[in-house]
Amino acid sequence: MTVVTYEAELKFLDYVKKMMNYEEALNVMFWDLRTGAPKDGVEQRSEVISQLSTDVFNMSVSDEMAGYLEKLEHLAAEGKLSEKTQKTVEECRKEYDRNTKIPEAEYTAYVKLQARSESIWETAKAESNFEMFRPYLEEIVAYKKKFISYWGYKENCYNVLLDMYEPGMTVEVLDRVFGELRERIVPLVKQIAASGKLLKTEPLTKHFPKEQQRTLSLELLRQLDYNFDAGRLDETVHPFAITLNPGDVRITTKYDESDFRTAIFGTIHECGHAVYEQNISKDLIGTPLCDGTSMGIHESQSLFFENFIGRNKQFWKKNYDVLKKHASGQFDDVSLDEFYDAINEAKPSLIRIEADELTYVLHVMVRYEIEKDLFDGSLDVKDLPRVWNEKMEEYLGIRPQNDATGVLQDVHWSGGDFGYFPSYALGYIYAAQLKQAMLKDIPNFDQLLLDGNIAPVRSWLTEHIHRYGKLKKPLEILQDVTGEGLNAAYLAAYLEDKYKNIYNI
Amino acid sequence: MTVVTYEAELKFLDYVKKMMNYEEALNVMFWDLRTGAPKDGVEQRSEVISQLSTDVFNMSVSDEMAGYLEKLEHLAAEGKLSEKTQKTVEECRKEYDRNTKIPEAEYTAYVKLQARSESIWETAKAESNFEMFRPYLEEIVAYKKKFISYWGYKENCYNVLLDMYEPGMTVEVLDRVFGELRERIVPLVKQIAASGKLLKTEPLTKHFPKEQQRTLSLELLRQLDYNFDAGRLDETVHPFAITLNPGDVRITTKYDESDFRTAIFGTIHECGHAVYEQNISKDLIGTPLCDGTSMGIHESQSLFFENFIGRNKQFWKKNYDVLKKHASGQFDDVSLDEFYDAINEAKPSLIRIEADELTYVLHVMVRYEIEKDLFDGSLDVKDLPRVWNEKMEEYLGIRPQNDATGVLQDVHWSGGDFGYFPSYALGYIYAAQLKQAMLKDIPNFDQLLLDGNIAPVRSWLTEHIHRYGKLKKPLEILQDVTGEGLNAAYLAAYLEDKYKNIYNI
Repeated sequence: MTVVTYEAELKFLDYVKKMMNYEEALNVMFWDLRTGAPKDGVEQRSEVISQLSTDVFNMSVSDEMAGYLEKLEHLAAEGKLSEKTQKTVEECRKEYDRNTKIPEAEYTAYVKLQARSESIWETAKAESNFEMFRPYLEEIVAYKKKFISYWGYKENCYNVLLDMYEPGMTVEVLDRVFGELRERIVPLVKQIAASGKLLKTEPLTKHFPKEQQRTLSLELLRQLDYNFDAGRLDETVHPFAITLNPGDVRITTKYDESDFRTAIFGTIHECGHAVYEQNISKDLIGTPLCDGTSMGIHESQSLFFENFIGRNKQFWKKNYDVLKKHASGQFDDVSLDEFYDAINEAKPSLIRIEADELTYVLHVMVRYEIEKDLFDGSLDVKDLPRVWNEKMEEYLGIRPQNDATGVLQDVHWSGGDFGYFPSYALGYIYAAQLKQAMLKDIPNFDQLLLDGNIAPVRSWLTEHIHRYGKLKKPLEILQDVTGEGLNAAYLAAYLEDKYKNIYNI
Repeated sequence: MTVVTYEAELKFLDYVKKMMNYEEALNVMFWDLRTGAPKDGVEQRSEVISQLSTDVFNMSVSDEMAGYLEKLEHLAAEGKLSEKTQKTVEECRKEYDRNTKIPEAEYTAYVKLQARSESIWETAKAESNFEMFRPYLEEIVAYKKKFISYWGYKENCYNVLLDMYEPGMTVEVLDRVFGELRERIVPLVKQIAASGKLLKTEPLTKHFPKEQQRTLSLELLRQLDYNFDAGRLDETVHPFAITLNPGDVRITTKYDESDFRTAIFGTIHECGHAVYEQNISKDLIGTPLCDGTSMGIHESQSLFFENFIGRNKQFWKKNYDVLKKHASGQFDDVSLDEFYDAINEAKPSLIRIEADELTYVLHVMVRYEIEKDLFDGSLDVKDLPRVWNEKMEEYLGIRPQNDATGVLQDVHWSGGDFGYFPSYALGYIYAAQLKQAMLKDIPNFDQLLLDGNIAPVRSWLTEHIHRYGKLKKPLEILQDVTGEGLNAAYLAAYLEDKYKNIYNI
């Protein structure tokens, strides 16, 4: 069948492109605010950002948008639209429904509550006082439940929240997969603790000058096939990667002179995100499809870079001398094996964002289970601190001494971001599955890392994942690449193999 | 009389604020493009810029704008508007008329011609071939004359062009003032040439590491009362200052390791522009009044900083050791007096943007006279190279050997920017008049520079100039501060005094 282009389709695509252009302007301003914008200009800048955000929002829920969607959905039903237009319509419909089904007054009240709640959370965390935060969190959860009833759902209401970050993901799948993973990781963590083996980590925290870290970061980014004609590296407080357009995907990092890992592994992680967006098909520019397909797949790319490349022994065999050259002598008496073991240390800790590769997913599971129970009504907000501490003890064998290092540590819930945490663990699981599939095509993976030749690895990821943007859903990508659904066995096997080796257990 | 606020006034101010917010977003993107934006993203970024520019343009000529202007002009006529609203209405009216009086088709054709003409000019300059550029320039001038007939004018049609950059300025005033100035400067330039005195300028072009230049620039900016809470210094190819909002006014500079003057005097110059905009009354934010009042007054601030502060001997008495500390030893055998003379060297040269403080205005006069004659019809485009060379010989005593270093050197005419050049010379004249007035209030000006205490000087400029933004017209500012109109005598006297001293004539 020939696909012709309709006038309504052209107008719709123009309209959407305009929204995307505003988004680019907004992202330039976000990047700027976080990379050294002078403080006295921030208040007025916020007004500009608020105006452009409102423009985009209004366009997404306008009568004009409603008209396009109706017309084009008819054409789509008759199979008359290109794949790109059809998927763009689907994305816009999702956004339209999500934003119009909530009565305006309720949404406004919720946005105010969010802002208030985030600021209360900050104080509550600083004072380690969950009771101060409790009433706000209760209200946020109540609103979120009401919103879900407006949006509508099948089976489990928490699936609606999951779907926002990981389209198609369900409690049923997560329960199974997280369960399997937990059963293999929890014993492993206990074995490591029991082994009593201590790694030589002191050199990692010796003084490493900032400028040298920057030079090293740039050198590694080049090796990792990050395209500097389509990006740049800057300094910030909370590192991130940001896409202005696929020809301009920037990385930011933070330099800690008493722990070079912050910058180096942070940069490699953000590089994975950035390389994803640098390699989305240019054909999708100007549509909402020109974006990572989900939080989880995005995280699979950053974690693939950070862990499967950045913590691989062959990668450091190639780069250890380079690191030594830029460091201040602290690694001169450290063998490559000792260094490799040290950067892969696994040790239960209380704070998620400081957790290692092995225990990180357990932190995520604690949050997932709590969220799920909050939304099916089997858990009350008031019981969160107790349940949190019990789960930490059960999975990680350690118990927070206060709520600041426990249930209050993450900002997410104060802003109503439920359903987001699972993506972090999904990223690991996906990454391990992708690695397994990649090895069939690139059996010499380790050798490529040793040669400093990452391009074939990056190309494989582009070929199978990056270029599609949102044209394929996460589980569709997984199925196409691996021939199966979500499966935690590969991650579990990888972690068992790696850590049994490092800890001789 | 009590000024009340009308509903139409509030709506109008909201509408204008929205335009200004888009302008801020545009300026963030301009700044970003010139300070290291990756090249692959530029094409798509241009689309975003074009869209937002179109939004602002459409808002400036919309029926809604026309409606506001009509209503508010009635209220203004009855004296019922605040000064701020009234002047905002005047600015928007000017813009509205300028943009709506030209038939759309003609304007579109002109914009295309501009783009084509600029690119032809680049090639013509590279090949030093005026004939290649001539037909385009002829067409540009013809369009501009037609536009002036649409806009309407009294007396001299060139006044319309002058008024765009310097509201209220006329050929009559410029002829008189430039004439007086020329009569005093041309002989001075000849006397200097005849004196045969050579200054010790070689140390100025010895290697000066970029990082050290940057540190020195930052140190000087702090001393010059540039507010780093409302600004930052970055690197670029063609230095500029840019206002995002009055709390965010940025400076960019260029580092030439074989001539530190580029960065240092460039930075001090841009600092003058930036300090102007940092100190406009916050009350004017969100209106077009929150901007320098004219090109000439803007240039008076940058030149005040560059020449009256940055090339003052007391300023260097304070900072010479600092300079030496950051330099690489090239000034160790150079006395302060020798250094001062060297940075003030005056020598006729062919290129305007490389000209010194003394001869610069003569370059401007050559252009002014040519433009004026082009628009009153007494000069044809085809005669430009000959007339240019004759005037250069007459005023500066040197003659370009080709058009690349002559009539083709500046980009302005290729884009239709006639009436712009005089502002550069006006800036010098204004600055000298302001300095004269300042000395009455701050007789210890030199001592303040020696103490490194520029704040009182900056405060005086803020009090009399900066804070008003566009609330006062240039000649109004001049009258209020100095009690007289435009007068070149102060600049002439300053230059005579300074250069007779340096060259012992």
